Amino acid sequence: MQKNLLLISNSSDPNNKYLGSHCEGLLKTTLADVEHVLFIPWAQPQGIPYNAYTALVRERFQELGKDLTSIHETNEILVALGKAQSIFIGGGNTFSLQSKLLNTFGAIPAIRKRVLQDGIPYIGSSAGINVVCPTIKTTNDMPIVLPHSFESLNFVPFQINPHYVEPEEGSKHKGETRADRINEFHATEDNEHRDLLVIGLYEMSSLVVKGKAMEVKGPLNSQGVVVFEQGKKPSRFPVDTDLSFLLRT
Amino acid sequence: MQKNLLLISNSSDPNNKYLGSHCEGLLKTTLADVEHVLFIPWAQPQGIPYNAYTALVRERFQELGKDLTSIHETNEILVALGKAQSIFIGGGNTFSLQSKLLNTFGAIPAIRKRVLQDGIPYIGSSAGINVVCPTIKTTNDMPIVLPHSFESLNFVPFQINPHYVEPEEGSKHKGETRADRINEFHATEDNEHRDLLVIGLYEMSSLVVKGKAMEVKGPLNSQGVVVFEQGKKPSRFPVDTDLSFLLRT
Repeated sequence: MQKNLLLISNSSDPNNKYLGSHCEGLLKTTLADVEHVLFIPWAQPQGIPYNAYTALVRERFQELGKDLTSIHETNEILVALGKAQSIFIGGGNTFSLQSKLLNTFGAIPAIRKRVLQDGIPYIGSSAGINVVCPTIKTTNDMPIVLPHSFESLNFVPFQINPHYVEPEEGSKHKGETRADRINEFHATEDNEHRDLLVIGLYEMSSLVVKGKAMEVKGPLNSQGVVVFEQGKKPSRFPVDTDLSFLLRT
Repeated sequence: MQKNLLLISNSSDPNNKYLGSHCEGLLKTTLADVEHVLFIPWAQPQGIPYNAYTALVRERFQELGKDLTSIHETNEILVALGKAQSIFIGGGNTFSLQSKLLNTFGAIPAIRKRVLQDGIPYIGSSAGINVVCPTIKTTNDMPIVLPHSFESLNFVPFQINPHYVEPEEGSKHKGETRADRINEFHATEDNEHRDLLVIGLYEMSSLVVKGKAMEVKGPLNSQGVVVFEQGKKPSRFPVDTDLSFLLRT
């Protein structure tokens, strides 16, 4: 089976609907052949309890005609992963998520087997796409929990920076811009992953990976991606661009 | 001797002068009795080499009438720290800085002794103030290097978030605001430091600590601080407020 990934930059659409208009069509296509979603709530946005987070997410997937179980609702996590028809990792804090992934015995190899070997659909948004990269080093989140490693699920051979954004026009803020931070990732010798490509994924845009093909999708007014390669000028690609060549890096 | 800390939110003033008008007077007062500054360049903004970073910083301190040595210019780091008249840790990437602090044998206890017991002036800006907190968990930086711990110099009993900012008016960005991220620090049960106060330090503002007294200083148009306490509404305090009570938390 081939990889089948839907990587969504941000979960809320312009009307603040959860997994709303910006990705609804992509969700339907990705989940066309499955009836059930296994949800991983470990990123816990704003520290909300897993039950509350799951209720929100379940309601949305039920609207889309899919049943959903959260991994925290089962005692047999590896059994649940082994039977999963599809997996969704939602947004929140990437460090919390990464710690739970690392500290849940067998979770990372089991998820990798289901997605990379068995080809079940994987959906991630925000923190849920930081963890599909080789490392979580291009997250925007605060490091509120210390994971013992920054290396993660490694479904794709590049880093993604979700919620990619340029400074608002006229901004006087003196902190680093997002592009500055990504340049720092590439320029700092102590970062042993500094040769990896980084894809800045604008809000409302998504990456769709099917086997060896990748495209950036989203509403026509979403901005697609900016690709940062070590030592080169960033390149922009609008929605509907074929980005398969980035999977071969 | 008593603690003598100058904690600067950001290094560039509105005209982009390094350690410029927003903190020049505070620098002069803090360094009034010393002739020499020991600089720690380990945060390496944008990954620039220590020599280049030091040249920039040395020029500015020379303008202020102070000689400066960088810690990377000496082979005897612990001797240099033992003799230091004052210490400046500059901005850059907090994870890079934290890793170097942890991995340089004896550096953290030596810095703590000089600052907390001997009372030499300590100046930090940006990343250089993340590390004076109990942990680096309220940094804004990307985690481009993995330190083996997030616990740091612990000069003050609270966390600081430098470059504190609210969303620009009319912003449509769907990522977490800075306040959201700080709330997440307080709300997430897996964060064993979640009971610590967090001080959001607006750009252009600085905290001045002398023994058991603390004040927020800066130009009159700088915004001071917002104090976040777990489970409470944030409180704002303008420049020139006596914040000594926060040292007793």
